[in-house]
Amino acid sequence: MAGGAGSRLWPVSRDSMPKQFIPLLDDGHSAFQATMLRVSGADFDRPIVITNNDFRFIAAEQLAVIGCDAEIVLEPQRRDSAAAVAVGALLAERRSAGGACLLLASDHVIGDEAGFGVAVRKVAGMASSGRIMTLGITPDHPSTAYGYIQPGDIELDIGAHSIARFVEKPDRKTAETYITEGYLWNSGNFAFSAETMVGELQSYAPEVLESARRAVEKAVRDLDFIRLDEAAFASSPTISIDYAVMERTKLGGVLAAEFGWSDIGSWDSLHAVKNRDANGNRLEGDVVAIDTHDSFVRSEEALTAVVGLDGVVVVTTHDAVLVSSMKAAPKVKTLVAELKKAGRREAGEHLRIHRPWGWYQRIDIGDRFQVKHICVKPGGRLSLQRHHHRAEHWVVVHGTAEVTIDEAVQFYHENEAAYLPIGCVHRLHNPGKIDLKLIEVQVGSYTGEDDIVRIEDVYARS
Amino acid sequence: MAGGAGSRLWPVSRDSMPKQFIPLLDDGHSAFQATMLRVSGADFDRPIVITNNDFRFIAAEQLAVIGCDAEIVLEPQRRDSAAAVAVGALLAERRSAGGACLLLASDHVIGDEAGFGVAVRKVAGMASSGRIMTLGITPDHPSTAYGYIQPGDIELDIGAHSIARFVEKPDRKTAETYITEGYLWNSGNFAFSAETMVGELQSYAPEVLESARRAVEKAVRDLDFIRLDEAAFASSPTISIDYAVMERTKLGGVLAAEFGWSDIGSWDSLHAVKNRDANGNRLEGDVVAIDTHDSFVRSEEALTAVVGLDGVVVVTTHDAVLVSSMKAAPKVKTLVAELKKAGRREAGEHLRIHRPWGWYQRIDIGDRFQVKHICVKPGGRLSLQRHHHRAEHWVVVHGTAEVTIDEAVQFYHENEAAYLPIGCVHRLHNPGKIDLKLIEVQVGSYTGEDDIVRIEDVYARS
Repeated sequence: MAGGAGSRLWPVSRDSMPKQFIPLLDDGHSAFQATMLRVSGADFDRPIVITNNDFRFIAAEQLAVIGCDAEIVLEPQRRDSAAAVAVGALLAERRSAGGACLLLASDHVIGDEAGFGVAVRKVAGMASSGRIMTLGITPDHPSTAYGYIQPGDIELDIGAHSIARFVEKPDRKTAETYITEGYLWNSGNFAFSAETMVGELQSYAPEVLESARRAVEKAVRDLDFIRLDEAAFASSPTISIDYAVMERTKLGGVLAAEFGWSDIGSWDSLHAVKNRDANGNRLEGDVVAIDTHDSFVRSEEALTAVVGLDGVVVVTTHDAVLVSSMKAAPKVKTLVAELKKAGRREAGEHLRIHRPWGWYQRIDIGDRFQVKHICVKPGGRLSLQRHHHRAEHWVVVHGTAEVTIDEAVQFYHENEAAYLPIGCVHRLHNPGKIDLKLIEVQVGSYTGEDDIVRIEDVYARS
Repeated sequence: MAGGAGSRLWPVSRDSMPKQFIPLLDDGHSAFQATMLRVSGADFDRPIVITNNDFRFIAAEQLAVIGCDAEIVLEPQRRDSAAAVAVGALLAERRSAGGACLLLASDHVIGDEAGFGVAVRKVAGMASSGRIMTLGITPDHPSTAYGYIQPGDIELDIGAHSIARFVEKPDRKTAETYITEGYLWNSGNFAFSAETMVGELQSYAPEVLESARRAVEKAVRDLDFIRLDEAAFASSPTISIDYAVMERTKLGGVLAAEFGWSDIGSWDSLHAVKNRDANGNRLEGDVVAIDTHDSFVRSEEALTAVVGLDGVVVVTTHDAVLVSSMKAAPKVKTLVAELKKAGRREAGEHLRIHRPWGWYQRIDIGDRFQVKHICVKPGGRLSLQRHHHRAEHWVVVHGTAEVTIDEAVQFYHENEAAYLPIGCVHRLHNPGKIDLKLIEVQVGSYTGEDDIVRIEDVYARS
C-alpha cells in the first residue's frame, strides 16, 4: 500500500511527493523502495502495488531504479485501507486463493531485515492455515504515536496469540499501562490468504468488497498501470481495515516481533531510527551545528546553521523551512492543515513538479515573466500544446531536444536556443540517450500553469 | 562612519552588504539611511560619509533614495575608527575649524528621535567650547554587549560630566555593579570641534593624524567619491578612537542620555528594539509561528514555519539559514568566522551581488551551465568584456537593452533574446528610463565569475 500522504514530515513530504517516495533512508532509498526490495526475494511472487493515481509515475520510476517488477494498481481516489486490502485480495485470489498474502505499508522502516524475514515466514504459515495475522511490535517505549493491540489468551504459536482488542493511540500514562500489560504496537502489516480475507470482507464489510470487485472487474490497463474503475471504487465506504475487519473477525492473530520497526510518522520518530553523532545530532546536507544536541537538521540546498539549541528539528527545502522542537514535531500535521486552509501551495506541492516525462522546477518569477529548469528523460515527450498568454525561450544546457513548432520539427543541442511565439502549437521531445535539460524563460501577461491547451498527450493526460 | 561589517547579524548582514545598509528598520530604511536622515535638518551642514571602498555604490544609491546629498569619502582599507575620525576632522576643518562636528556610527538605532535632537544640541554647544563629548546611554539592563563609561566627579552641565574611565564589555556580574555605580553605555557617538580633535590627535596619536593628513591631501575625486590616498592611509596605525584619544584626553566629557539607543549588534538586540506581538514574537516576511514565544523570525523568501519553540532566532535567506537560541545569538560571530575559515562563500557574500550598474543574482547552476537574473539601472553600463569559456544567452524580460556584440550595436526589447558566442567582445547598457531585467543563461566548460576580460569600464574597475 503506497497511497498515503504523510504531512507530519512536511516540508519534505507533501501531497505531490509523499514520504514513502522520498529518499529518507541512509542508503539513499525511499521507504517504498526499501519495502519492495524486502519482498523481492525468491520466496515472493510478483508484488502488487496499490497506490494513488497521482503517484503512478513516481512509483514506476522508483521501481525501475531498483529493478523491481510489480503490478501497479491505481486508486482513482482515496478510500482508506479496507478498499485497498479488498482490491489486493481480489487480485491475489486470481493467482492463488489459498496462498499467503503479505500486506505491507510502504512507509515503514525496518532495522533488522533478518528478523523481519523470520517473522514473515511465521505469519505466512499461519495465514495459509486460515488466520488473518497482524505483526505486533514489542514496544521499547510508551509511544503515543501508535495504536496498540492487546494479545488474547490463546497461544497460536511461539510468540503468536489471538487478539483481545485493538486500541487507538493512547496518552502517555495509558501507554505506560499498556506496556506493563504486554500490549503490542499495531504495525498495520498483515498476512492472510486471499480467500480468508475475501470471506471476512464478505461477512463484515460487504459493501467494500462489492465496490472493490466491480472496480477490479471493470479496471482498464493504461500504459503499464491497472486503473481501477472510478465510479465503482468511489462507491466504497471510506473505512480502515482495522475497523472493517480486524476488530470483528474471529480469525485474527498477532505475532509479537522485534525488528526495529518505525512508521517514521514524524520528524522525531525519523530522528530516533537514524544514526546520530556523539552529540545526538543527525545532520543531513549542507549543515553546520554549534553547541547543539539531540537535534535533526536537514538541508536540501541552503547552507543551514544551528547555534545553541537542544532537541530541535530544522528542515530546509527550496521553498519552505520548518523549525520545530523535537517534542512538538507531530504538530506539524496541524501546521500543514492550517497552511492548506490558507491556500498555500507549499503545503501540498513541491517546487519540483514530477511528470511522466521528467520534471520541472521554477527558478525565478517576476512581473510578466517566469523561469523554469526543465528536465526531460530519454524518450520523454511533453504534450503537444499551446499557450494563450506567454511566449517561451528554450535554451538547451544539456542533451538534445527535438522541438516541434507548428509544422516544423528541429533539433537543438547544447547552447542552442529555440523561440516559441505566443499561440504557436509546440512539443518538446528528448530523442537522446541522456537527460535533456533546458532553461525556459516565459514572457507574457500571464504565466500560470493553467494557461495550457493540450492538443495531444502520449501519457493520456489530455 | 559607515565602514563596518557586522557578522553577528549573519546571514542577512555579510561583508558584501553589511548590516548598516540592510533595510532592517520598521520603516523600510537601513540604519545608514536613518542615521543620515537624522542629520539632514537645517541645523546640519552637508554630511561627510566615511565608508569602505567596497560599499561606495551602495552608500551612494541609498543616499539617492532618501534624497540626501553627502560627501562620500572612501577608505581604501580598514584602519579602525581613529583614522576615520582623523580624516573626518581634517575635512571638517577645511569648512570650519571651530564649528561643532557630530561623529555618528551608521549602524545604530534610535527610538526617541526628539530626545536624540535635544542631546545633540547639548553636546554641540559643549563641543564648540572645546570639549570632546561622548553620548553615554543610561543603561536599562546590565548588558554584556557594550563597553561602559564611568562619569567623573566634575559636572560640566546638566547631565554631562567629565570622564573617569572607559571600560571594556564586562561579564554579567560586573555589568550589574556598573549599573549600580552609575556607569553609562559607551555609544561610540561623539561631538567635538575639528580643531580640538585635530589637536588631541596631534598630542596622542600623531602617526594616525599624519597618515590621515597625507591621505586627504593626496585624495582624488573619482566619479562622485573622494578616494583617499591608498599608501598614505595604509600607513596609519589600526586603533580605535577610544584607545587613541578618548582614554587619554583631558578634554573628554560624557552626556547621560536616554533616547532608546541600540547598536543592533546581534539578533537578540535587534529583537529587543523591534515591535513584538502578544507572544513576544517578531515575525518578518513569509512566516508562520505556532506555540512559539519571544522569538525573532525573518524570511527573505521561503515560507518559514516555527513550531513549539521559545526564545529562538530563525533567519532564512536565499542561500543560508540561521537557527539559534536568542541567548546564543552573539555567538553567530564565531559561526561566521568558522565558515570563513572553511572558505564558504555564504560567510561573506550575498547571492545578490551589487554593482555600480545594478545587480545580478544566480538563480540556477549545474554542470556546464549557470543562470543569472541581471538588473541594470537606467543608464547603467556593464564593462566591455569577453569570456574565454562560456557563451551567453540573454532574454530581456523587462525594459530595453542596448547590446554591443563585437562591432554591432542592437536594441533588444521585452521577449527578445540575444546570443553572445564564446570569445565575442560584448557590452550591456540600459538606455531606457526603467530597470532593464534579463535572464542570462551561460553555457560552457567554466562559468566562474573570474572568466572575464574587462576591456573598458565606465566605473573605473578595469
